[in-house]
Amino acid sequence: MGLFHLTAPEEPITQATPRPGITDLGPGYLDAELLATELLREACLEALETWGPSAMAYGANAGPPPLRRFLAAKASTAGGTACTSANVLVTGGTSTMLSELAARLAGEGTVLLTEALTYDLGRAIFAELGVRVVAVPGLPDLDPDELRRTAVRTARSSGKPPALYVAPTFHNPTGRVLSLDRRRAMLAVAEQTGMRVIEDQAYADLDYGDEIVPPPLTALADDPDSVVGLYSFSKSLAPGIRVGWLIGSEKRVSRLETGAERRSGGGPSHFAALAVAAACTSGSFDAHLVELRRQLRLRRDAALSPLLGALPPGFSVRVPTGGYFVWVDIPAAVDDRAVLREAEARGMSCALGRRFGADARGLRLCFAGHPPAALAAAAERFVAACRAAAR
Amino acid sequence: MGLFHLTAPEEPITQATPRPGITDLGPGYLDAELLATELLREACLEALETWGPSAMAYGANAGPPPLRRFLAAKASTAGGTACTSANVLVTGGTSTMLSELAARLAGEGTVLLTEALTYDLGRAIFAELGVRVVAVPGLPDLDPDELRRTAVRTARSSGKPPALYVAPTFHNPTGRVLSLDRRRAMLAVAEQTGMRVIEDQAYADLDYGDEIVPPPLTALADDPDSVVGLYSFSKSLAPGIRVGWLIGSEKRVSRLETGAERRSGGGPSHFAALAVAAACTSGSFDAHLVELRRQLRLRRDAALSPLLGALPPGFSVRVPTGGYFVWVDIPAAVDDRAVLREAEARGMSCALGRRFGADARGLRLCFAGHPPAALAAAAERFVAACRAAAR
Repeated sequence: MGLFHLTAPEEPITQATPRPGITDLGPGYLDAELLATELLREACLEALETWGPSAMAYGANAGPPPLRRFLAAKASTAGGTACTSANVLVTGGTSTMLSELAARLAGEGTVLLTEALTYDLGRAIFAELGVRVVAVPGLPDLDPDELRRTAVRTARSSGKPPALYVAPTFHNPTGRVLSLDRRRAMLAVAEQTGMRVIEDQAYADLDYGDEIVPPPLTALADDPDSVVGLYSFSKSLAPGIRVGWLIGSEKRVSRLETGAERRSGGGPSHFAALAVAAACTSGSFDAHLVELRRQLRLRRDAALSPLLGALPPGFSVRVPTGGYFVWVDIPAAVDDRAVLREAEARGMSCALGRRFGADARGLRLCFAGHPPAALAAAAERFVAACRAAAR
Repeated sequence: MGLFHLTAPEEPITQATPRPGITDLGPGYLDAELLATELLREACLEALETWGPSAMAYGANAGPPPLRRFLAAKASTAGGTACTSANVLVTGGTSTMLSELAARLAGEGTVLLTEALTYDLGRAIFAELGVRVVAVPGLPDLDPDELRRTAVRTARSSGKPPALYVAPTFHNPTGRVLSLDRRRAMLAVAEQTGMRVIEDQAYADLDYGDEIVPPPLTALADDPDSVVGLYSFSKSLAPGIRVGWLIGSEKRVSRLETGAERRSGGGPSHFAALAVAAACTSGSFDAHLVELRRQLRLRRDAALSPLLGALPPGFSVRVPTGGYFVWVDIPAAVDDRAVLREAEARGMSCALGRRFGADARGLRLCFAGHPPAALAAAAERFVAACRAAAR
């Protein structure tokens, strides 16, 4: 026994890379204080009390029925996607589900289209598994005409309609919400070109209530088989629990549910999904969300105030109404790496826009990972860095 | 809140399909009584106490360092694979890892060779993702000459060396342990033909101590990059926790660890893996294994006794020295489906051999899922069924 120790000095058990002396607004992490640690502790105990050893057996392939029921009802609320449990597949998180979809697209030889600015690791998951990924020109928003042209061109070269990966709500990295008109126009193009759509809604639950968010694409599509929506508890409860969900047609859900990996290993994250089911059905998840949104809104405001009106000419800030990110557009004459260099020299960091798209001119600031005072101080340093880089 | 309920009457939250009136020795499930439910409850609490919110953050991409250290030391014990944490990747279970490897093989266009009798869902995971799967002729054991011939033939047709999927220890479905000579011969063929090997060791921990089990292929291979070994806590602790591990060269582990899915979502099953880490470092996992092996050995004996000397001529039983399964070979003149029909008419069931390979002539009985008395009664009914089918 004496050979092994649970903890070693300063041993990192998380993905985060500590950067001493830097307030790092780079990664999309939630502040440890905002993670639903205590809620999930209680939920684990409740799941074990309710289901006993069944909580530890091979789980139902599509996920625990009580969680699917809850998520179907949640999706069906006003303006949402009318659906039942049969439209819900519990996943091991968005990254895992993207990987599963990527493997299927790769097998078919389907090309994937993305927004010009898109989640870099989402794109990398597809590319690594052999999917050809093509960015649709058009910033900041997907342009329907460009989308059509790109879809037609790639369909011709690959011999089949491409698929599209898009994050319409509280977009990573820009935080933008795609308008209802754009959503409809995009779906019209998808329908005309036979394109299937993967809708990344990882941040959808983090809505600060500042604007009316249009319905998800799964609710707007004429053909329910053409869109799957990916949702996550990673951004709202905790990423360490590895639970998310997919909304899709019964046919799509049933096809994914009966895949060999699930028939072999059962539902992914079975025990964790039961804990989440306990948190959802008890109401503690909803209560947590209300408080989390309030906290994130406070942090957004703390990060935003020093920026507004203070950035040099040609710089502009997008004010997000949900999610984790503020995006700062920078003028063509300024190098994003120069801004980052100046920022790090002043003790703050953020993410380079070029990570998210070749033509991106900007920087992404995550305001979810630090308390308001630290964010305000970091934002002031960021302003100074922008001024220095623009000089 | 009143809308949602954790439990509905008789709602299944597990993968198991109850079959009233049947003692089902078909699926490879562990009896609920033998699942490490209470151990894992305590381990979850200990993980949260030790690491707090870090247990809920994005986990280290290769898995928690304390678990990797424990597993490296476990692998390095006498006759094992000398290794360090850098040779260990924590996985979300064998099925998930097979799927990840399958996606990579599919992307490369690599053909997968399997034993003539092999884990059916393992094979299906590869086939579904577009990998061409070829069974190497030869029962009950992989024949080195057949392996070489098949490897050369598929290399010629696909333009690159194939990969090999093999379960050398307590094989599913036959329970057999591949001899040291066969292991060496197989590895020699792999080396000569440039074949990489995926070694499925899901049942390796369930060793009843009846024979000396040869070292794993990762310990025997001259080229450490040529083999990865897949291990699991699903068969020893509980499948609902979704934690396993991979043993491979530093290069292979590092390549898998830096894949986009892990860079995006962190280590799979992070919180669950920390609970397992707590159970491993406290010694409770090892203590559990000792008792589990004893229980499984009792159950094997209970299932086996009624069969020995009682089956009709031409039927034979393989006595497993570990794992979950007894395999019964049947004569060419008898149809496995006829045996199953007769068995189910008598209130017991098992798995058809043909599930595991086109040329298989036999049936698989899982003795892990029922208490000894039920197993003995089911085995007696199985004997009667064999007699009826052989008549």
